[in-house]
Amino acid sequence: MNLALHSPLDMHLHLRQDEMLDAVAPLSAKYFAGGVVMPNLIPPINSIERLLWYKAEVKRATAPYVFEPYMTLFFRSYTFSELEEARRNIIGVKLYPSGITTNSEGGVQDLSLIEPTLSMMQELDIPLLVHGETNGFVMDRESEFCRIYQLLASKFPGLRIVMEHITTRDAVVLLDRYENLFATITPHHLLTTLDDVVGGLMNPHLFCKPIAKRPEDRDALLAAALSAHSKVMMGTDSAPHPTNMKESHGCAAGVFSAPIALPLLAELFERHNALDRLQAFVSSNACRIYRITPREKEVRLIKQSMIIPASYLSIVPMWAGYEISWSFEA
Amino acid sequence: MNLALHSPLDMHLHLRQDEMLDAVAPLSAKYFAGGVVMPNLIPPINSIERLLWYKAEVKRATAPYVFEPYMTLFFRSYTFSELEEARRNIIGVKLYPSGITTNSEGGVQDLSLIEPTLSMMQELDIPLLVHGETNGFVMDRESEFCRIYQLLASKFPGLRIVMEHITTRDAVVLLDRYENLFATITPHHLLTTLDDVVGGLMNPHLFCKPIAKRPEDRDALLAAALSAHSKVMMGTDSAPHPTNMKESHGCAAGVFSAPIALPLLAELFERHNALDRLQAFVSSNACRIYRITPREKEVRLIKQSMIIPASYLSIVPMWAGYEISWSFEA
Repeated sequence: MNLALHSPLDMHLHLRQDEMLDAVAPLSAKYFAGGVVMPNLIPPINSIERLLWYKAEVKRATAPYVFEPYMTLFFRSYTFSELEEARRNIIGVKLYPSGITTNSEGGVQDLSLIEPTLSMMQELDIPLLVHGETNGFVMDRESEFCRIYQLLASKFPGLRIVMEHITTRDAVVLLDRYENLFATITPHHLLTTLDDVVGGLMNPHLFCKPIAKRPEDRDALLAAALSAHSKVMMGTDSAPHPTNMKESHGCAAGVFSAPIALPLLAELFERHNALDRLQAFVSSNACRIYRITPREKEVRLIKQSMIIPASYLSIVPMWAGYEISWSFEA
Repeated sequence: MNLALHSPLDMHLHLRQDEMLDAVAPLSAKYFAGGVVMPNLIPPINSIERLLWYKAEVKRATAPYVFEPYMTLFFRSYTFSELEEARRNIIGVKLYPSGITTNSEGGVQDLSLIEPTLSMMQELDIPLLVHGETNGFVMDRESEFCRIYQLLASKFPGLRIVMEHITTRDAVVLLDRYENLFATITPHHLLTTLDDVVGGLMNPHLFCKPIAKRPEDRDALLAAALSAHSKVMMGTDSAPHPTNMKESHGCAAGVFSAPIALPLLAELFERHNALDRLQAFVSSNACRIYRITPREKEVRLIKQSMIIPASYLSIVPMWAGYEISWSFEA
C-alpha cells in the first residue's frame, strides 16, 4: 500500500540553533514542505533583526530541500510599526506563559498587560500561537488555562488563536465553541498517555510539556485528528535535546519526532481506517486556517515496516527501536 | 534543638541482595531499630528455606548494629503447615498484584484464588501486606484497588491488612471505615506530588510505584501522618537501584531514602509543629499494630543543617544535594 501526501506541513516545530539546528533541520526539511518554527531560543527571537537572522539560519540549514520556514516572533509588547514590519516575515506571534516550558523564562506573566499588542495583532490579522498552561498541578495546567483561551477568544473575536499542542478533552471542546480558536496536535499526544511516560518504566524520551494526559483526553484528541476536524492541524512539537540532557538527573522536556512523524501517523490513521483524512490533518487544514500556499512537494509513504532508529546523531527519537508498519518510500 | 527517637522502625524496606544488600543494609541498620524487609528478590522469598537464608543474609549485612529484620514471605498459595512453620520467622505475607511493581512478576493475578491462604493467615493471625494497585491508568491504580481493600477487609475481619505505601486520599479514608485496615506511608509521598516527578524537569530519583499523586492526596497523607493517626506507620519503601538503572532510557521505579528518612521527617514534622507526634509515626504505632517490641535503641537528631549526599556508593538518594534543616547527632 502507498500513500502520497501533498506538501505536508509541521505546524509546530523546534529547530534550535547552531549545531543542533544543523543536525535536525534537514530531518524536517526532507519530509515536510514547511514548518512553523518556534522562537524560543536563548535569547528569544523577539526583534526583526533576530527574526531575519534566524530565518536565514533556518534557510541555510534546510537547503537544498524545498522547505518553507514559517517564522514566529516570541511575544512581548510590540509597537504597531514593529508588528507591521514583521508581518511579511512571520506566520504568527508565539505566547509563552512565563517559565512554563523550555527556554520560555522571558515569557508573559500578567495577561492583562498583553492586550494592547493583541489588539494590534487583531488589526493586522497576525495569528496568536499560545502555549496554554498555567503554573498549577501538572495534570491540570492546560484545563486551567482553558479559561484564558475563552477570555482571549471572546475579547478578540477577529484574532485567530492557535491552541498549541493540545492534550486535553477540555481544549478539544473549545474548538467548537469559539470560531477563532484553532489547535495543533502532536503525533505523540495521539499515541501516548501519562502511562507511557511513568506507568511502566519511566521514559524520558516521552517526557514533554504539556505532559501526556489521561486515556479519555487522548481519545478526544484522536477523535479530532482522525476526523480531520477542520480546526486542527498537525504540529509535531518535535523538540530535540542531546541524550545527556534526557537520560539524566533532571531530564529536559521535549519529544523528538520530526523524522518519523509521518510514518507514525500513517500507521495510526490506517489502523483507524482514516488514511483518507491524513492529507487534511497534515496539510490542507493548515493551509486554509493560516491562508498559506506551500510549494508542491510530494512525500510518498509505503506500508513497509521500519525500525525507528536508536538515535539521529546525538538525539534519541520517540519509540527508538520500535518497529512500525509504515515508512518513507525509498 | 534535639530530638531523641526511641527504636525507630522502617515498616517497609527493600534491602535487595548480594552487593546491593551489603551497600544499603548498614544505612538502614545504623538509624533504625528494625525494619520490615520486602521479599521481592529474583526469585522471590516464597519458601521457608529461602526465608531463612535471606534472614541470615540480612543479619550478616546489618551486623553489628542493633537492627531487627522483620521478614516477610512473598504471597503464593501456602499450606497450613508452611504458614505455621513460617509464622515465628515472619511479620507478615506480602501480596503483589502481578507485574505491577519491581520484581513482582510472580505475583497474584486472580484475587479469588487467594482466599484459602488468606483464611489460614487469619486463623494464624499473620498480617497481610498489600501493594494495592490495579493495572489501570497510573493515576487511578490505587483508587481503583480500594475496592479490593474493602472486599478483603470485610471478608476477613480478623485479618490485619496493611495497605502499603499509600498515596491517595481514597486509601486514607478507608482507615476509618475498616477496623482491620492499616497503612504505611513513605516520607517521599508526604513531601512530593506528581509535580515533583514530571512537573518541572523530570526527576528519575523521585519516580516510584505507586507514583506520587495530586496535591489533595498528599495533603490527606500529611494530615494522617502529622496527627500520627493510630493506624498509620512510617515505611520508607526505600528501594535502591544503581544510578545507571535510574538515569537511563527506561528508569526503574524506586526512591532511595533510608539514610535520610528520619531527618526529612524531623524537618517536616517541626515545620508543622508536630514533632511530638513523630515517635508514634515512626515507632509506637507500628509496635501496637504489629504487636512487636523492638530492642531499645535511641536515635538522636539535631536541628542542624545537612546537605543530602550526591550518592551513597552508586545509589542516588532522593533530594541529592538539597539542604535540609535536621541531621543525625554526630
